[in-house]
Amino acid sequence: MKKALSIDIGGTKICYAIIDENGEYLTAPQKVSTPKSAEEIFSLLSSLASEYDEQIDAVAMATAGAVNRDNTRVVSSTPNLPSGYNALDFSKISSKKVFVENDANAAAWAEYKLGAAKGCDYSIVVTLGTGIGSGVINNGALIRGKSGAAVECGSMKIFADKRQKCTCGRYDCWEAYASGTGLRRCVQSMALSEPEFSTSMFKDKNIEDLTTYDVIDGVRADDAFCKKVFAQWLEYLYVGVVNLVDIFDPQCIVLSGGMGEFIDVEQLENRVNAEIVVQPVKIRLAKMKNNAGMIGAALLALK
Amino acid sequence: MKKALSIDIGGTKICYAIIDENGEYLTAPQKVSTPKSAEEIFSLLSSLASEYDEQIDAVAMATAGAVNRDNTRVVSSTPNLPSGYNALDFSKISSKKVFVENDANAAAWAEYKLGAAKGCDYSIVVTLGTGIGSGVINNGALIRGKSGAAVECGSMKIFADKRQKCTCGRYDCWEAYASGTGLRRCVQSMALSEPEFSTSMFKDKNIEDLTTYDVIDGVRADDAFCKKVFAQWLEYLYVGVVNLVDIFDPQCIVLSGGMGEFIDVEQLENRVNAEIVVQPVKIRLAKMKNNAGMIGAALLALK
Repeated sequence: MKKALSIDIGGTKICYAIIDENGEYLTAPQKVSTPKSAEEIFSLLSSLASEYDEQIDAVAMATAGAVNRDNTRVVSSTPNLPSGYNALDFSKISSKKVFVENDANAAAWAEYKLGAAKGCDYSIVVTLGTGIGSGVINNGALIRGKSGAAVECGSMKIFADKRQKCTCGRYDCWEAYASGTGLRRCVQSMALSEPEFSTSMFKDKNIEDLTTYDVIDGVRADDAFCKKVFAQWLEYLYVGVVNLVDIFDPQCIVLSGGMGEFIDVEQLENRVNAEIVVQPVKIRLAKMKNNAGMIGAALLALK
Repeated sequence: MKKALSIDIGGTKICYAIIDENGEYLTAPQKVSTPKSAEEIFSLLSSLASEYDEQIDAVAMATAGAVNRDNTRVVSSTPNLPSGYNALDFSKISSKKVFVENDANAAAWAEYKLGAAKGCDYSIVVTLGTGIGSGVINNGALIRGKSGAAVECGSMKIFADKRQKCTCGRYDCWEAYASGTGLRRCVQSMALSEPEFSTSMFKDKNIEDLTTYDVIDGVRADDAFCKKVFAQWLEYLYVGVVNLVDIFDPQCIVLSGGMGEFIDVEQLENRVNAEIVVQPVKIRLAKMKNNAGMIGAALLALK
């Protein structure tokens, strides 16, 4: 049974474990704080690789950013990681095979091999968090594009009239509307425009302090304003999902991330299937909980 | 040298020729009117296949509609072809190999093998006509999806607030804005809203009679209103192109169809490259003129 040291590199934490080719943990996942410089990250990864060298067949990494065609380095800027990060050649951290993949792609691979998209050679994972990440399996392989940067679906524009600026500086990215951040924007903007706010359980709160969690709490408490906000947010999610289904014609779309549990997936699936021009799709919640990226990267590295 | 009888089936005409594996015509393309019933179409195709049977290695077909995974029949409804068309099993029209492909996919394959996307294993062809057709090459293969219906990019929504109904009955499809039909809608709607219309060369024309060609004529004549309309149309085209580049990370996008020649491709490429989050893309006009679908289908059938 082949084994990889798999490392998930985030802006605040680096998480790692030894994982076998079936995706099983052989060591409990451990976390360390992400060092502040690219050089220190490289040193940390090298020392981890050297520590586990005799137990492993490969080093796998899941990281933010677009990964090059050789799966050895990051080619795009990665705002949450230190400058110089995308100059690092990760193939040099170990004498063993090193395989790097974008974290959303790695998560999509994990859901495809072991999770909610198991058996679906055509599937999409959409991660709803601060932003929107995505990975697409087409004919049993990840879509990576000419430079490894493909399926930046969070950047898909869902308005064509420069309606709302995204945190990335561009306009009308899907993730500016349908991410967790998008839900916060939605509640703050609708608090100003919707009469229902005046009778909402949050009517006395400062508008700029309204959060994603307030909306969720309000929906649970049957608050009319919060239900209206959430319905609008779902509409934004719906439009992007319809686009991805018409573009990729997948067997299933997996929704991942903290927001997923608040979505009526069956209702969303019915609406999407009534709208698309391709054949019906299944919509499911992710099965792989935390560390999907770490597991997917290990499976890819040991493939 | 292998040869195919290649047949392009349109709503009004069926076009056919013998084409070799290099994409060269061995007979001049011929046209016949499309019969009015599915049965007559089947008979016509069968008699063509039988007529050329001794000269060919395969029968290739390019057709509207999504084509099944076996490339033998159409699985979606095709509004411009008679009812029953998608019940036809085209593999039965000849004892030779029969290979059916969606016409936009076949055109994308022709541009990839012989045209403007030659050598680009990651490329997209967007056909701007009455609607918008598209075909995507990923890692040297067509993206077809679970049911052969993928890359329905003309159906991508570019607004999320049900702004404009498309001829398909859905809202805000890209092709409702950025096709030839979209340009006509644009000029008719902007004639009502833009003050420049009152001094336009078309100011005395009935608004509902304004056409795509009027806009083009006006742009050529430096008419301020028509230039504003065309700029708005280009904006709609631009948004969809940006989305496709961020989604597929292609080396090049090929614009095909009659509208292409009126677009400043270099300017569009510069704007797109300033906006996308993936690596730069080339934008080119199609090289394969008419019958790209017929040639692409032949190349695929003889592959």
